[in-house]
Amino acid sequence: MFDPATLRYDAAGLIPCIAQEAATGEVLMLAWMNAESVARTLETGRVTYWSRSRAAFWVKGETSGHVQELVELRLDCDRDCLLALVRQTGPACHTGRRACFYTAVRDGDEVELLAPEA
Amino acid sequence: MFDPATLRYDAAGLIPCIAQEAATGEVLMLAWMNAESVARTLETGRVTYWSRSRAAFWVKGETSGHVQELVELRLDCDRDCLLALVRQTGPACHTGRRACFYTAVRDGDEVELLAPEA
Repeated sequence: MFDPATLRYDAAGLIPCIAQEAATGEVLMLAWMNAESVARTLETGRVTYWSRSRAAFWVKGETSGHVQELVELRLDCDRDCLLALVRQTGPACHTGRRACFYTAVRDGDEVELLAPEA
Repeated sequence: MFDPATLRYDAAGLIPCIAQEAATGEVLMLAWMNAESVARTLETGRVTYWSRSRAAFWVKGETSGHVQELVELRLDCDRDCLLALVRQTGPACHTGRRACFYTAVRDGDEVELLAPEA
């Protein structure tokens, strides 16, 4: 049996979770979960983070419609990081881009790789 | 110009960095960097983390030979998470597995997806 309490959380009770698009392998974003977020994500199949800025549960896409349907949740060797394989509806990033990692460092400069979607 | 000082670090001066195999898209691991790790990674092309347990720079593969050659460093919209596209030599995980995320939660149980390499 998997028990969210067996994960290793930081001093704030949080664990980082990487969201990866299951179909393409694209890394979409990283956000944080507490034990209850992990449990809710598994129960509902809707990826549910803990918003550090709002100090509240954050069902991804609840207001924007840009939901993350959980395909599979994985944990790492140290049990202190999660990887959520997801089916992302619409852009994952709050800037309207498909993924949050749209800035690359090339030859010492920042280069923008993705534009906001329509 | 990209300046590592413009990233957003946590209270310990660290930022999480996701390592992704450039050729396959597989998410290999997550570890931490400080500003100097970021600078060294970009200068040397060898991914260099900050080991929280040893409180020391950690040139990935320096002792094991399982180096990570940097293909491209990316940052997210909030500038508080990094994504390193890498060419990984040998297993990325200290358990000898190709990647650290080898445990999946399926039907409430933990399932091991990868075995250690020879």
